[in-house]
Amino acid sequence: MKFSTLFTLISTSLLLTACSTQEVANNKTEKLPKNIIYMIGDGMSMAHLTAYRHYANSSEQHIGLGNKVVPQTIFDEYFVGVASTLPDDDTLVTDSASSATALASGEKTYNGAIGLDNDKSNLTSILEHAKFKGMLTGTISTSQVTHATPASFLAHNESRHNQNEIADAIFDQHINYKVKADLMLGGGTDYFIREDRNLVKEFKQIGFNYFSELSQLSDMDQLPVLGLFAPKGLPYAIDSQDNPNRLLAMTKPALSLLNKNNPNGFFLMIEGSQIDWCSHSNDIACAMQEMEDFAQTLSAVIEFAKKDGNTLVVLTADHGTGGLSVGANKQYKWLPNVIHKVKASAGELVKSIFASKDIAKTWLDSTGFELTSEQLTSVKELKAQDKSKELYAKIMKFINDQSFTGWTTTGHVGDDVAVIAYGPQSNKFVGAQDNTDLAKKLLSYIKTK
Amino acid sequence: MKFSTLFTLISTSLLLTACSTQEVANNKTEKLPKNIIYMIGDGMSMAHLTAYRHYANSSEQHIGLGNKVVPQTIFDEYFVGVASTLPDDDTLVTDSASSATALASGEKTYNGAIGLDNDKSNLTSILEHAKFKGMLTGTISTSQVTHATPASFLAHNESRHNQNEIADAIFDQHINYKVKADLMLGGGTDYFIREDRNLVKEFKQIGFNYFSELSQLSDMDQLPVLGLFAPKGLPYAIDSQDNPNRLLAMTKPALSLLNKNNPNGFFLMIEGSQIDWCSHSNDIACAMQEMEDFAQTLSAVIEFAKKDGNTLVVLTADHGTGGLSVGANKQYKWLPNVIHKVKASAGELVKSIFASKDIAKTWLDSTGFELTSEQLTSVKELKAQDKSKELYAKIMKFINDQSFTGWTTTGHVGDDVAVIAYGPQSNKFVGAQDNTDLAKKLLSYIKTK
Repeated sequence: MKFSTLFTLISTSLLLTACSTQEVANNKTEKLPKNIIYMIGDGMSMAHLTAYRHYANSSEQHIGLGNKVVPQTIFDEYFVGVASTLPDDDTLVTDSASSATALASGEKTYNGAIGLDNDKSNLTSILEHAKFKGMLTGTISTSQVTHATPASFLAHNESRHNQNEIADAIFDQHINYKVKADLMLGGGTDYFIREDRNLVKEFKQIGFNYFSELSQLSDMDQLPVLGLFAPKGLPYAIDSQDNPNRLLAMTKPALSLLNKNNPNGFFLMIEGSQIDWCSHSNDIACAMQEMEDFAQTLSAVIEFAKKDGNTLVVLTADHGTGGLSVGANKQYKWLPNVIHKVKASAGELVKSIFASKDIAKTWLDSTGFELTSEQLTSVKELKAQDKSKELYAKIMKFINDQSFTGWTTTGHVGDDVAVIAYGPQSNKFVGAQDNTDLAKKLLSYIKTK
Repeated sequence: MKFSTLFTLISTSLLLTACSTQEVANNKTEKLPKNIIYMIGDGMSMAHLTAYRHYANSSEQHIGLGNKVVPQTIFDEYFVGVASTLPDDDTLVTDSASSATALASGEKTYNGAIGLDNDKSNLTSILEHAKFKGMLTGTISTSQVTHATPASFLAHNESRHNQNEIADAIFDQHINYKVKADLMLGGGTDYFIREDRNLVKEFKQIGFNYFSELSQLSDMDQLPVLGLFAPKGLPYAIDSQDNPNRLLAMTKPALSLLNKNNPNGFFLMIEGSQIDWCSHSNDIACAMQEMEDFAQTLSAVIEFAKKDGNTLVVLTADHGTGGLSVGANKQYKWLPNVIHKVKASAGELVKSIFASKDIAKTWLDSTGFELTSEQLTSVKELKAQDKSKELYAKIMKFINDQSFTGWTTTGHVGDDVAVIAYGPQSNKFVGAQDNTDLAKKLLSYIKTK
């Protein structure tokens, strides 16, 4: 028997017997990742992914690009499974702190907890384990650095609301006598530069390079780095006409920097923070623009990982927000072309109505569709009564009704979320799992380092 | 070099290089299935799966079985991907006929079409291809046999509403001079036994064994078989206290029969039809009981497939119905214990209110929670005005509010649905795909027979 024949026989038999999905999922022989990039779409439900696919393949003029074809998004291309998100209490619906702690540590906790379990004991995060192992570490978010998701990787606090304490902890809590993160990009000067303490000054004193403008990021050539680009969260993508893809703008230079002369690898958490915020407002145009930035960031991350060959990328959501559905109100349709025409977030639309002398024209210019006379009257009444909150909800309803977008809540939902993975060990994430399993798998790769 | 060493080297290298998820998905060497079982949860959205997981792990007394643990359902165990569902028009939201035709034939069509494309040309279904290849074929549904989903496998008609014509076609349209299906179980005497034609008589005349009671199914020992157990659809599971799992009751004896002395294999479509109907009513208790029957049926099917070793099982949904969410109305909770206490479908609850002399007590007995005085007044008013439709919607709202269940529509939504698979070639279904891809893959296994 020739070796080549033997090889064919063996390879056929192995493929026949060894490569069922289940066995691949259990395959322990694949190489371990050097770098881990963990992406979290805050509030990104399964419906956000379908909605974004149609949004990405439509325009102001067209609902879809031919309806027999469904071009895949970058999320679709690497979709492998789903994750359950329930917290460690009897609600079955999590908040962002509890689920971020689960995603960061592999342990369930109560709603509101930052890196603590139900007994208020510290839960060590993946980022902390990575730092123990000598890896470079970082977080990037469009929220403030002290917000629930990045905070759960960087700190421990009994409440997500204690953002000053969390900022302090990010500086004060050390691993191997050093700050835990080598790179932090996001918003949050309100919490870092305060009357009682100037943490930006303190970070500079210990050698951090500080940036306050996204445009400066091209100068970012050495770690450690702190970049705070807004008092709290960054402006919404939909309201950032010059640079709507600010998560992408932070991520690309960060990847180069973390990968430069780095034999030990890096752990980087990247949060698309504001998918959640737009969805709390039931603001579909705002949410879709955040999805666009998140998708482009994933594309850049996958491109990096493909080139590198040793980077595992895992993307999920902490929970769904809004109870979004593609289609609503008994009608069998959804109109992404309506959404493309909306030019500002709910908050900016309300401001423009309050500033306007011709509300009908202002509305048409901002949204591309005319208000009915009844709708116009109700807007004028709410403006006259200075009821901005009611106006906010009212105009969201107009856009949702016009586009047949459904929402069940301005809060969170308990539905499973997507799991998307690429790179070494990505096959381990195939199927249905709990969100703590994602963290446990990632931790296992870091702990064996 | 010894053969064993060589084997180890080759096997390691193969596992390293050949077994990424993507490559497994492309693996063409795995054996082909002899039998194919295609299960369709009509209207089963991704949220239905999360909701059912919590429902299955709760009771009237308890919200969950300890909240750190999330016991998997049979759906979770074999979850592999998602499918997009849009029809061949510009709505992006499908009806059951269009999506059933896509799932049956691999081709998109317009809403309402039964086995026809947008030009009204026949689309050959998987069941028809299977019959051409000499396989045994069958459909099982809790809807009437002439309803959109089974009809799209069995017939061709320009409209799903022509159910008499569809019943005629099921008898009249032949393959190899024979009726296409060897087994049809479901409802539908209204369409098979009519003034102008008695199709049950005609089926008997060509040798079909006919059954009209589920309890007779233990006598079913020879094909071909027609079983019609209701004028239209079977009663809801929640209203069938004696035998709520009627899909299971039809499926178990059908599997034995199709597998008996059958060298060519079989194709069987099994539809959990009424998940959709309950969800159109936004009736969560009704939907969860249908999910229970569907889950138990999947368990029986997987048990059969495991024992057989040559059966591919693929389960999906044609679309989501209702825009369901686990949690609603700004509250971060969902209460399956409330749902367990509801003892009847919306229709039966309305009937019992109309028949009741003590509405407060009737309601409490049927649902386990008390109406507020305001709610009670509104129910009494609607009853007095004989407004049963409004009463129906009102009492669903009470139950949904009480359990924090969200719905965005009484129609369909365009969100992607789950794909669940087990058996030979099941790894081909990993990831995000279009619903037509499911049919195309299944067709490819039958065409190579």
